Amino acid sequence: MSSFGTAYRIATFGESHCKAVGVIVEGVPPGLPLTEADVQPQLSRRRPGQSNLTTPRDEKDRVTILSGTEMGYTLGTPLAMMVHNEDHRPKDYGEMDYYPRPSHADYTYLEKYGVKASSGGGRSSARETIGRVAAGAVAEKYLKLAHGIEIVAFVSGVGLVNMTPAGDYEPEQEEEWADRWNKWWATLKTVNREQVDSNEVRCPDAEWAAKMRQRIERSRDEHDSIGGTMVCVIRNVPTGLGEPCFDKLEAKLAHAMMSIPATKGFEIGSGFAGAGIPGHVHNDKFYQKGDKLGTTTNFSGGIQGGISNGEDIYFNLAFKPAATIGQSQPTVTYQGVDGVLAAKGRHDPCVLPRAVSIVESMAALVIMDALVLQNARKSTAALIPVDPNMPPALRGELGLGK
Amino acid sequence: MSSFGTAYRIATFGESHCKAVGVIVEGVPPGLPLTEADVQPQLSRRRPGQSNLTTPRDEKDRVTILSGTEMGYTLGTPLAMMVHNEDHRPKDYGEMDYYPRPSHADYTYLEKYGVKASSGGGRSSARETIGRVAAGAVAEKYLKLAHGIEIVAFVSGVGLVNMTPAGDYEPEQEEEWADRWNKWWATLKTVNREQVDSNEVRCPDAEWAAKMRQRIERSRDEHDSIGGTMVCVIRNVPTGLGEPCFDKLEAKLAHAMMSIPATKGFEIGSGFAGAGIPGHVHNDKFYQKGDKLGTTTNFSGGIQGGISNGEDIYFNLAFKPAATIGQSQPTVTYQGVDGVLAAKGRHDPCVLPRAVSIVESMAALVIMDALVLQNARKSTAALIPVDPNMPPALRGELGLGK
Amino acid sequence: MSSFGTAYRIATFGESHCKAVGVIVEGVPPGLPLTEADVQPQLSRRRPGQSNLTTPRDEKDRVTILSGTEMGYTLGTPLAMMVHNEDHRPKDYGEMDYYPRPSHADYTYLEKYGVKASSGGGRSSARETIGRVAAGAVAEKYLKLAHGIEIVAFVSGVGLVNMTPAGDYEPEQEEEWADRWNKWWATLKTVNREQVDSNEVRCPDAEWAAKMRQRIERSRDEHDSIGGTMVCVIRNVPTGLGEPCFDKLEAKLAHAMMSIPATKGFEIGSGFAGAGIPGHVHNDKFYQKGDKLGTTTNFSGGIQGGISNGEDIYFNLAFKPAATIGQSQPTVTYQGVDGVLAAKGRHDPCVLPRAVSIVESMAALVIMDALVLQNARKSTAALIPVDPNMPPALRGELGLGK
Amino acid sequence: MSSFGTAYRIATFGESHCKAVGVIVEGVPPGLPLTEADVQPQLSRRRPGQSNLTTPRDEKDRVTILSGTEMGYTLGTPLAMMVHNEDHRPKDYGEMDYYPRPSHADYTYLEKYGVKASSGGGRSSARETIGRVAAGAVAEKYLKLAHGIEIVAFVSGVGLVNMTPAGDYEPEQEEEWADRWNKWWATLKTVNREQVDSNEVRCPDAEWAAKMRQRIERSRDEHDSIGGTMVCVIRNVPTGLGEPCFDKLEAKLAHAMMSIPATKGFEIGSGFAGAGIPGHVHNDKFYQKGDKLGTTTNFSGGIQGGISNGEDIYFNLAFKPAATIGQSQPTVTYQGVDGVLAAKGRHDPCVLPRAVSIVESMAALVIMDALVLQNARKSTAALIPVDPNMPPALRGELGLGK
Repeated sequence: MSSFGTAYRIATFGESHCKAVGVIVEGVPPGLPLTEADVQPQLSRRRPGQSNLTTPRDEKDRVTILSGTEMGYTLGTPLAMMVHNEDHRPKDYGEMDYYPRPSHADYTYLEKYGVKASSGGGRSSARETIGRVAAGAVAEKYLKLAHGIEIVAFVSGVGLVNMTPAGDYEPEQEEEWADRWNKWWATLKTVNREQVDSNEVRCPDAEWAAKMRQRIERSRDEHDSIGGTMVCVIRNVPTGLGEPCFDKLEAKLAHAMMSIPATKGFEIGSGFAGAGIPGHVHNDKFYQKGDKLGTTTNFSGGIQGGISNGEDIYFNLAFKPAATIGQSQPTVTYQGVDGVLAAKGRHDPCVLPRAVSIVESMAALVIMDALVLQNARKSTAALIPVDPNMPPALRGELGLGK
Repeated sequence: MSSFGTAYRIATFGESHCKAVGVIVEGVPPGLPLTEADVQPQLSRRRPGQSNLTTPRDEKDRVTILSGTEMGYTLGTPLAMMVHNEDHRPKDYGEMDYYPRPSHADYTYLEKYGVKASSGGGRSSARETIGRVAAGAVAEKYLKLAHGIEIVAFVSGVGLVNMTPAGDYEPEQEEEWADRWNKWWATLKTVNREQVDSNEVRCPDAEWAAKMRQRIERSRDEHDSIGGTMVCVIRNVPTGLGEPCFDKLEAKLAHAMMSIPATKGFEIGSGFAGAGIPGHVHNDKFYQKGDKLGTTTNFSGGIQGGISNGEDIYFNLAFKPAATIGQSQPTVTYQGVDGVLAAKGRHDPCVLPRAVSIVESMAALVIMDALVLQNARKSTAALIPVDPNMPPALRGELGLGK
Repeated sequence: MSSFGTAYRIATFGESHCKAVGVIVEGVPPGLPLTEADVQPQLSRRRPGQSNLTTPRDEKDRVTILSGTEMGYTLGTPLAMMVHNEDHRPKDYGEMDYYPRPSHADYTYLEKYGVKASSGGGRSSARETIGRVAAGAVAEKYLKLAHGIEIVAFVSGVGLVNMTPAGDYEPEQEEEWADRWNKWWATLKTVNREQVDSNEVRCPDAEWAAKMRQRIERSRDEHDSIGGTMVCVIRNVPTGLGEPCFDKLEAKLAHAMMSIPATKGFEIGSGFAGAGIPGHVHNDKFYQKGDKLGTTTNFSGGIQGGISNGEDIYFNLAFKPAATIGQSQPTVTYQGVDGVLAAKGRHDPCVLPRAVSIVESMAALVIMDALVLQNARKSTAALIPVDPNMPPALRGELGLGK
Repeated sequence: MSSFGTAYRIATFGESHCKAVGVIVEGVPPGLPLTEADVQPQLSRRRPGQSNLTTPRDEKDRVTILSGTEMGYTLGTPLAMMVHNEDHRPKDYGEMDYYPRPSHADYTYLEKYGVKASSGGGRSSARETIGRVAAGAVAEKYLKLAHGIEIVAFVSGVGLVNMTPAGDYEPEQEEEWADRWNKWWATLKTVNREQVDSNEVRCPDAEWAAKMRQRIERSRDEHDSIGGTMVCVIRNVPTGLGEPCFDKLEAKLAHAMMSIPATKGFEIGSGFAGAGIPGHVHNDKFYQKGDKLGTTTNFSGGIQGGISNGEDIYFNLAFKPAATIGQSQPTVTYQGVDGVLAAKGRHDPCVLPRAVSIVESMAALVIMDALVLQNARKSTAALIPVDPNMPPALRGELGLGK
C-alpha cells in the first residue's frame, strides 16, 4: 500500500506525469503552529536542478496545504499537502518506452499491475517521495518543539570513496580501532545541517566532499551513474520508543529506509562490523547519567531490545547507482526482442545529495509514530492507581538496598 | 505491537517464564493439509540444547495446534499454536536481577513499561520467536505446494571468519570480481537444507564450517559471545510480489529480519557493495526467458522497484554477539550503583546456528503476505471485461511491431 | 482516523472552509476505465442547491482526478480525487461562533482536540462525505462491470411518515403479515435509481413522496428540521463475502452507515422486527437455485453468519433531524453563559434526499472491500493441489449419496 | 479477520470442537493488577447451563492466563487467555450434518472457505465469544480503576414483550411522551448488575422479567426459539472519545455489536424514534455542568459528531431468534435435495440472557480502544509549548468577554 505508520500515518499519491503528487497525514497533533514555510525547505533540498551534480530539470515543487490547518495552526484533522506536476502530460513516446529499463521498475510494475504508466517512471518515480518529505517535515517540527529531537543525515560515501572511519574489529590493534569508533560517535553528536549543506554533495567534511564530487562528476561525464552511502543520526530521543516484538525501532527504521528508491542496505549501530566484535567488547556498559542510565559505548546505536535507550540513534544506508543512464545498454524490449537502450536526456548521476532530506523525513516519520504510541501507553498506564503491593522485582527495584 | 503481516497475519504471545508461548495466524488458506508434524521440524531446528555449540538447556518445544484445523486440514479460520514453557516459574532472584544486562533489553523494557518481568528476558527472550517459526512453517508448506517456492538460510560468517566470496567492486580486476559474483549466485541457486544441516554450525561448506566452529568454541571457552552473518535465498518466487511504495518487498524483508533479536544489518542483492559499483555494471540487463523476461546478472537480488522480478531473492544479515555472557562486566545496577555483573549459567556463545529457521520463517511470512495481496489484486483485476480500446502503451505493447 | 477499509482503502481530507476536500483510494483494480465522468453523477446527487427542499447554497462540486489514472484507465496506484471549496475563507464571526450548536459537533470537537475550526463545522461538516462518494462511485463502477452488482438507496420515511409496509410480527394475522414482507422483498428486487430520482424527495413511490415532501416543507417553513429513514438494497452480491468474526458483512455495513453524519439506527434484514418473530418463522429455508442454494424468505437480509448468501442484501437506517436550525434555542456559550442561539442563513430542513448517494457509496465501499478480501482467499486456496484424501464431511459432501 | 481494535487490540481463536478457544490482547496497560479471578465472572455469566432458560450443557469455561502477567500484574506484553473445549472431538455425524441449518452459517461458511467444520458451528459457534468476553473483562477492570466507568447491559424485551417506555414522538401528547423519555434516562442512570442478575432473564425489572420468562418458556416448550432486545448503558465516559470521521464512537459500537452472533439492529440514543422527532425538540440543549457543559436532554445518547460528550452513552440492540431449533423444518441438503431437518439435542430457546456479558464486553473493548487513542492525542498535544498568539476563535474562546 501507499500508506506508512500507525498513529502518525501518511498516505501518498501521485505518478511522475499525473496532475499532482502529495500526501494526507493522519494523527497530526492539534494546535501545532504550521504553514507551508515549515514544509518547503526540506522539499527544496530534494528538488531537482539544485546544482550541476543533479538533473538539470528545474522544478519548483511549491507545496500547498489543502486542509488540516486554520490561521496557521493544525486542527488535528487530516493534513493534506500537494505539489503540482509542472509538466503532467506524458511526453511523446521514445526509444525508452520500448524497453523496460534494466534495474528500473518498468518491467516489474507491468508484471504486477498488467498495465503501466505509458512513459516515465509512473508511481516508481522519485517524485513519489515528495509526499514523504512534506509529512516528515511536519513530524520534525513537532519533535523539535516537544522534545528537542534533532535529525541529521549526510552523504558519507560515493562509489568507493568513503569517509566512515569506524571499521571491522581489529583484535591486534584494539585500542586504535576503539578510538576510531569513539571519534565517529563524537562526530555524530555534533554534525548539523549547516555543515551538511555547506557543499553540493551534502557531506559535512569539505575534504571528503571534494573527493566525492570528483567521483560524481566522473560518472556524469561518462553518462554513467554511481551509488554511495548515507549516515543519519537522531539525537535527544526519549527512552522507551519502539514496539516489541515486530515493530522494534530498528525494524521500523529499516522498513522506512529500505522503502526509499535505490536503497540496498541498512545498518543500525555497529551493523555488519558488529558481527565481528566479541561480546565483551560490543556490550555497551551502563553508567549513571542524571536520573537515567547511559552507556559508555554506543555499538547498540541507541536501541536495545528494539527500544530507544536515550543514546544517539544512528544508522547507515547503501544506495545503488541510478538505473537510468545515458550509456548504451544491450537489453531486450518488453516483448523480448534484443536491442540497445540509451536513455535520452540528462539524469542524476548520483541520487545521494537529493536523498538527504528523504532519509531525514522517513526517520522523522518513524520516531513520531513510535513517540505517539509510547505516549498512548504511558498516559494510559499513568491512570492506574499506585499499588503499594506491587513486588519490587517488577519495578526493577530489587537492588535498591544494595 | 506483537503482530506482523496484513493478509497473512500473525500475533505472538509469551514471555520466557510464563505458562506458554505461541501464535495466532489469520489468513491461512482453507483446505491446506496440516498437522503438528508440518510445524515441528523448524521448531526443533531452533530449540536449545541441539549441540555443544548452543545452550545446553534441553527444552522439547513440542507444538500443539489448538484451533483452525480439523481432520488434518486447515479450515481457513484462525490457527492457534502453542508451546508450553517447561519451567515457567520465575527462578530465585540472583545477581543478574540487580543489574540490567549491558546491550540486553532489561533497561529499555523497564523504561518503556514501568514494570518488567522479574527475571529472565520476559518478552525480549528469544522464546518469543517460537510463534514466528510455527507460523512461518505453515506459510512455507503453502508456498512449496502452490508455487514450489524454496527458502534456504545458512550461516555465512562467524566473527571475522566469512565465506562470502563476492565483495566490493574492483575496477582493476573487474573480470575476476564479476566471476566471484557469478559463483556466488550459482551457490545460491542450489544450496539446500540438507547441506545446511550437515553440520552444527549450519554452514553448507564443510571447510568454512570447521573454521566457524573453532571461532564459536573459542568464545564458548572464554565465556564470551560472538556474532556473525547469515545469507538467505528464496527461489521460484512469482513476479509481481511487493507493494509500492512503502511496502516494497525488500522493505518488508528488512522489517522482518531486523525484528529478529540481535540483528544489526540487512542487505538485499548487492547491498553495501552495490554502492561502489558503476551503474553500467550494476544494471541487470534483460533477456527473454520463456514467456517472461530474465536478467543476466542479479545485483538486484530478485527485486526491482520493490517488486519481485522472478529471479532469486537473496539477502544478507548481520547478527551481533549475544548480550548475556559469563565474563565479568563492570556496569551499574538499575539504581545506578557501580558493580560487576557475571551472568550465571551457560548461554549460547553464538546465536546463529539456532537462528537459521527463524530467518527462513520470517522470510516465508513476508513472501506469503505479499503473495496473498498480489493474488487479491490479480484476481480482482481479472474480472474487468477486456477493453479493446486500451492504448497499447498502457499494456507495455508499444514496441510490438519492432 | 479518517481512513476506511482494508483492501480497498480510502483516506479522506478536508474541512468546510479549507481549500479543498478529497480522498485517496488505495487498492483500485488496475485497468479499469475511469474518468471524472464516472464519479461526477453521484457527487451531483449529494451537492447542495439541487431543489427547494435542500439548502439553496449552489456549489458545483466538480471533481478532479489528480493521480492514479492515465488515458482514461486506472493504473492500480493510489487514486487521488479533489473538489475545491468555492468559498474557503472562514466567514466573519457571528452569533453562531459563540455557542456550540446543540446536538452538533462543535463542543465535542473542542473537547477532543483542544482547538476547533473557527467557524463552520470544520471536519464535522457533511462536505467531508464528498471524498466518500467519489471513492464509492469508483467501487460501484467496478462492482457493476465485474459482477453486475446494483446498489439502490431511497428515502423510505420522513418524520412520522413512513412507507415501509413490513412491520412487527402479528401472530393473529400471520398470513397478512407475511404477505406484507413478501411485497416488500419484491419492491427491493426491482427498485432503481430512475424511480428514486423521479422526485426531489428521492422516494420511489410518488404518493408517499408527496406526503414526505409536505412534511419537509413544514419543517422548512417552521425554521425547524426533521429526520427520516432510508432503505438500501444491494443486488447480485456473490456468496461468501464478509469476514468472521468481527468483520461480519452486516457489522461492516453498520460501521459504514453509522459513520455517516446524523445516522441513529441500523437494521439488517428483519432488524428490530426480527426480535419478535419466532424462530420457526424467521428461519429462511433453503431451496435449490441453479447450482447454488437460495432461500424462500429473506429475513436474514442476504447475510448469514456474517457472510453473504447470494440473496438481496438490504438494510434500514434512521437519520435524526439536522442540528442546525433557524428557530431560537435556549442554550449556553462555550464558557457556559446562558443565551439564545438562532442559526443564521438557510439550512437543509431534511438531510435525507442528499444522503442517498452517500449511503450507496458507503455500501459500495464495504462490498468492494469484502470482495477483494474474498478474492484473495479464493485465489490463494485455489492453488492448493486437489487432495483426494480430504474427508467428504469437510467439503459438505456428507449427504451426497442421500 | 478475527481481530478487533486498534490500540487495544484483540485476536480470538477457536471453533466449537477444537482443543481450546481464546484470545490474545495487545495494548494492555502495564502495571494493572490482574488474575483469572478478574476475568472469570463475566465468562460465567455467558456460559451455558446456568438456568433452565438456557441450554443444559454444563461447561465450566475456566479461563487460564497463559502470558502477559507476572505475580498478579500485567507486564504490558500480549495477554493470552484460553478456555479448553471440554468435548473437543467432533461427534458422530447425524442428520444435522446433511443439511445446512436455515438461517445459520453452515451454508455461507462452506461457500466462503470451500471447506467447513465437519459438524457443530465451527467458528460461527458462539463459543468464539469467550475470547471477546475475557478481553472485555480486562478492559472493564482498567476503565473502572482509571475513570470509574460503568457498563451495564440488560434484556429489555423478549419476542413482542418489551419494557422500553420511550417510543415514537407523539406531537399531540408531547409532555407525556417527553416524560417517558425522562423516566427512561433516569433508569439508565442507576441500573446495575445486581439488579440485572436478580433473575435468570437478566431483566432488572421483576415484573417484566416474569413476562419475558414466560415467553421464553413457551418457545422452549414448543422446541422453537425467540429473539429480543437488549439495552446497554455506559456511564462516566470522559469527553472526547471517538475518532472522526469513520471511527465515530457510535460507528465503532455498531460495528462491535453487529459482530455479535444473532444481532439484527442497533440504535444509539433516540435511534429510529429520532427520525420522527422535530429538530427543535431533538436538539440537546447545553447547560453548565461543573467546569464542562452538560445537556438537558440526551437524545444524542452521549455522543455528538461521533465524539463522547460526557453524558451517558446508551444503545439498543435487536437479536433474532436462534437458528437451531428442534421443530421440523422443510429445507434441502447441501446438494439441494429436499428434506426435513429437526435439530437433535436441546438448544437455547433465547440467547439474550447469556448475551448480556458479551454486549458489555464488546462495549468495554470499544471504549478502551477509543480512550487509548484519545490519550495518545492529548498527551502528544500537551507537549507543544503554549502559544500566546493562537487566535481565541481556535480555542473556542471567542465569546469570553460576552
